[in-house]
Amino acid sequence: MKVLIVHAHPEPKSFTAALRDQAVATLEAQGHEVQVSDLYKMNWNPVASDADFSNRENPEYLVYALEQRLGVKSQSLAADIQAELDKLLWADLLILNFPIFWFSAPAMLKGWIDRVLVSGICYGGKRFYDQGGLAGKKALVTVTLGGREHMFGEGAIHGPLEDMLRPILRGTLAYVGFDVLEPFVAWHVPYISEEARQQFLVDYSQRLQHLSDDQPLVFPKLAQFDDKLYPLTTNG
Amino acid sequence: MKVLIVHAHPEPKSFTAALRDQAVATLEAQGHEVQVSDLYKMNWNPVASDADFSNRENPEYLVYALEQRLGVKSQSLAADIQAELDKLLWADLLILNFPIFWFSAPAMLKGWIDRVLVSGICYGGKRFYDQGGLAGKKALVTVTLGGREHMFGEGAIHGPLEDMLRPILRGTLAYVGFDVLEPFVAWHVPYISEEARQQFLVDYSQRLQHLSDDQPLVFPKLAQFDDKLYPLTTNG
Repeated sequence: MKVLIVHAHPEPKSFTAALRDQAVATLEAQGHEVQVSDLYKMNWNPVASDADFSNRENPEYLVYALEQRLGVKSQSLAADIQAELDKLLWADLLILNFPIFWFSAPAMLKGWIDRVLVSGICYGGKRFYDQGGLAGKKALVTVTLGGREHMFGEGAIHGPLEDMLRPILRGTLAYVGFDVLEPFVAWHVPYISEEARQQFLVDYSQRLQHLSDDQPLVFPKLAQFDDKLYPLTTNG
Repeated sequence: MKVLIVHAHPEPKSFTAALRDQAVATLEAQGHEVQVSDLYKMNWNPVASDADFSNRENPEYLVYALEQRLGVKSQSLAADIQAELDKLLWADLLILNFPIFWFSAPAMLKGWIDRVLVSGICYGGKRFYDQGGLAGKKALVTVTLGGREHMFGEGAIHGPLEDMLRPILRGTLAYVGFDVLEPFVAWHVPYISEEARQQFLVDYSQRLQHLSDDQPLVFPKLAQFDDKLYPLTTNG
């Protein structure tokens, strides 16, 4: 398996980085090939802008997705985007590895999503969800957070973590066609003992060794909707 | 009323910018004071990093929220963060005005949230949700998107838009104490007629003129949970 880990944490010695390293070691020991995009280290530019296109469909008015499509066709995407896109297309498994900032990804990683998941390849027209451009690939979200596990779930103060992660799990990864696996979550990280951290690393390694047994989360399929994307059960 | 509009769109002539201008005109005509943070125009830096703190609690290991707290206490936050924080604290109403990118905010705006909503002022310890540091203020999310209205809602292909916006509405705005109003949504914007766009501007202006009648969305209150944040209904 070919694996791309996209890592975004402002502290190089963070526990999130230890999870990244654990993933590299575990996956390589199993014979998989691994590439890492360490966004802070790369000084990744997270800002989607007109500077991403040297060759504009419409130089007067920027519609970002439209310019992505032309950029793909004319092979004129910005070099940093193209390099990440190449890794993404190479990979069978994408791991997004990050600390939860405001119940979602740090801006650094959000900007990787905004710029790299280009229209014309990753999605476009009716190519989304199970018909998405990256169908056949798997994705795993690995996160660290400050909250305790009992603060998440039905009836808990923040509700289910998967609901907070919905724009990433469903709106991004499932949207472009990934089989999205259940997130791996390290809870309460800033406050736990070294032993508890080590246990998360062991659990993560175990999880990665048996990833092929995981059932992906369930999301909509285009066949459940009509041509105008109304649900077939009520309109078909 | 004092109003801060935080606007993030890579195209200065976008319809999202027209919504921003409509809000400024409508609110000023009503006698409100308005400030606008146009993040792309300001060349806002969306990346939370150690560069945000000139005076570190721990120079060896960055815990971003911890350094925010010291930065607040010692008045040593980065100047760009402090300037935005001052506007935020000045405002009675915050409007986040943006195009939906991947069912959430563009990285540019996410980085405003990551950096400006500092621990120690906006939240901290048990000061969140109705006890959040910005309690008493209102927030409105105004978005444009490519999808059609029937693609959102219960049973629709993408589910309710409010569910996709949960990390912003609940996990960010409600978390820091805002009364969060129902989002204003302009659907299918890249594909609609000039007349349809004008109608959205009229509808938005009407909405803004009667904002004080709006009932905020309902989110958890800390009194519903015990000291360890277990729900009182099942553990109390």
